[in-house]
Amino acid sequence: MDYKKESIKLHRLYKGKIRLSIKTKVENKQDLSLIYTPGVAEAVKLIAKNKNEALELTNKANQVAIVTDGSAILGLGDLGPEAALPVMEGKSVLFKKFADIDAIPICLNTKDSNEIIKTVKNISPIFSGINLEDISAPRCFEIEKRLQQELDIPVFHDDQHGTAIVILAGLINSLKLLKKKFKECKIVINGAGAAGIATSILLNEMSPKDIIVLDSKGIVSKKRIDLNFKKKEILKFTNQNNINGNLEDAIKKADIFIGVSKPNVLTLSMIKKMNDPIVFALANPDPEITYLEAKKSGVKIIATGRSDFPNQINNALVFPALFRGLLDNKIKRVTTRIKLNAAKALADSVKDLNKDKIIPSIFDNNYIKNIVESVK
Amino acid sequence: MDYKKESIKLHRLYKGKIRLSIKTKVENKQDLSLIYTPGVAEAVKLIAKNKNEALELTNKANQVAIVTDGSAILGLGDLGPEAALPVMEGKSVLFKKFADIDAIPICLNTKDSNEIIKTVKNISPIFSGINLEDISAPRCFEIEKRLQQELDIPVFHDDQHGTAIVILAGLINSLKLLKKKFKECKIVINGAGAAGIATSILLNEMSPKDIIVLDSKGIVSKKRIDLNFKKKEILKFTNQNNINGNLEDAIKKADIFIGVSKPNVLTLSMIKKMNDPIVFALANPDPEITYLEAKKSGVKIIATGRSDFPNQINNALVFPALFRGLLDNKIKRVTTRIKLNAAKALADSVKDLNKDKIIPSIFDNNYIKNIVESVK
Repeated sequence: MDYKKESIKLHRLYKGKIRLSIKTKVENKQDLSLIYTPGVAEAVKLIAKNKNEALELTNKANQVAIVTDGSAILGLGDLGPEAALPVMEGKSVLFKKFADIDAIPICLNTKDSNEIIKTVKNISPIFSGINLEDISAPRCFEIEKRLQQELDIPVFHDDQHGTAIVILAGLINSLKLLKKKFKECKIVINGAGAAGIATSILLNEMSPKDIIVLDSKGIVSKKRIDLNFKKKEILKFTNQNNINGNLEDAIKKADIFIGVSKPNVLTLSMIKKMNDPIVFALANPDPEITYLEAKKSGVKIIATGRSDFPNQINNALVFPALFRGLLDNKIKRVTTRIKLNAAKALADSVKDLNKDKIIPSIFDNNYIKNIVESVK
Repeated sequence: MDYKKESIKLHRLYKGKIRLSIKTKVENKQDLSLIYTPGVAEAVKLIAKNKNEALELTNKANQVAIVTDGSAILGLGDLGPEAALPVMEGKSVLFKKFADIDAIPICLNTKDSNEIIKTVKNISPIFSGINLEDISAPRCFEIEKRLQQELDIPVFHDDQHGTAIVILAGLINSLKLLKKKFKECKIVINGAGAAGIATSILLNEMSPKDIIVLDSKGIVSKKRIDLNFKKKEILKFTNQNNINGNLEDAIKKADIFIGVSKPNVLTLSMIKKMNDPIVFALANPDPEITYLEAKKSGVKIIATGRSDFPNQINNALVFPALFRGLLDNKIKRVTTRIKLNAAKALADSVKDLNKDKIIPSIFDNNYIKNIVESVK
């Protein structure tokens, strides 16, 4: 199948992928008098007295905003809010299909952090959660942090935490298979954007031996004078021996390589320097090393972001179920504990654990229910 | 039926009235690869090259935002954005039911005009129209005007223009029945909020003999020093003899009374001073004079905003079909001509014209199609 051609055909045929529907019956004037004037005034008055009634009398309790500024769409970059909409609609479909959540795309015509924060706060009253999406680093960090401080609904930047949770789940199972522990592992993360930074922070919770993060200029180290505030922040717990250099230098004796960077940067000679290599090559659609090359090079476990090879590290495994849990329990923020529990629930959902099945596939049973139940 | 109790019951049972649905099939990994990554990247790229492709490849062409700040909800006043949601959802149901439009409620947590304008502009890229709703006067006038100037999609404040269009349609048919012409008519409009002001402006297009507008302080006249900019603006064409006073003074020899004010302000003695009175008593749920009292007092034609009496002047007759026409023809602003044509199309849709049927009922046939076709 030529998926590029077929995808355009599908988008053109349906003119997008989501629409609104009516929940109630609307067949006569009496129906209208209940759902609209004059009857609706009663619901208005109850909510005016007690805002929480909006969770009972409107769709708010099931409503999430997927917010983007179109500045980091997939791996394609800053293409603007209109171009982001197909991804946001796709995301909305996943929310609906896997967790029955009504997730409304909001594509913003501004890239100013303050204005994004203000706009999201302004539209927030009818949502029970905010999923930030495809907002470029390092702005995404501050936008998420400040929104979470100022709103009493969960704010979750999926490119950061969704990715980090699925990676952690995959690593938990990989280490189980190789009978290794996090505290014995040196982890190299290639890429210091939203996903790389968040993954380093979440993996640090597992107390690995060391984490080395690299950006396009090389190893993130104290010597560097070009680091943004977030890269400086992770220096508190990464690169404990304060080494400098490039991926060649970082990879020596590493146990785990996580690529959230670009195609073909992980070479055969680098893999040879690793211990029982676990390689998550997640650049999409072309990974840091292909599945087949990695297999040939003697990697113990290989995962990619692709659906056409085993072990797909796919955000979509987490965000629908995680938000379902957040909404069902009226949780106001996504704590580290919640993320760790979701990763464990996802890892534990694999029944026939083996090197080519370290993570559930998206249409598998149980993992959704397990993640939802993990959220408390 | 106790519609208050039944309405709350319905809202509680369904938890609101709208939800999202998926347009496409999502049953396997291949479906996902078309609607989400990697296939979706092709739609993204096409839109990045040409923004107009969003109208073909996403739901944008059928998507309208219903924007409120909750400052003038129904007749209930400023009750906040959460309390506005039941009305916005009801409105969204009407958009869907009568014109298959996806109208997304946006309830804003600010009443600052500049911030409302900025926020709406920020979220505008994925919408093909903006329906402003339940925003108090006089802020609504400036917000609508500036948004229409700065956006290239139609911006329509329904409380103003929707009301004005249906009133005009009702008057066209009323005058037809009484064999009178607009140019012979003195029109009194009681109420100078969003609806009253917009109605005076639209009715002026029919060149009536005179229009007198009143607010809560009395007749809007040049002598008044307490008028907002919009009330001053309508002085250019209203109150041509520059009279002062109250409704008693204004109503003398009037042919048409339009109430968009409050209950029971139109008395029997006032009606006696009118010529072949046409009375549109539209305060809701309790009109300026009840249908039964008006009938007794010798009024020739009486209309109210209520669904339980004949001649319901109901915004819902217009906005769904009007927006359908705007979207189908990719029209960028709602001109006076479009409003006049919609009113005529609505008036002409009444088949069995008589004093108790001056306007279609919402479930009638044809009027929707006629309004849609009038929009060019």
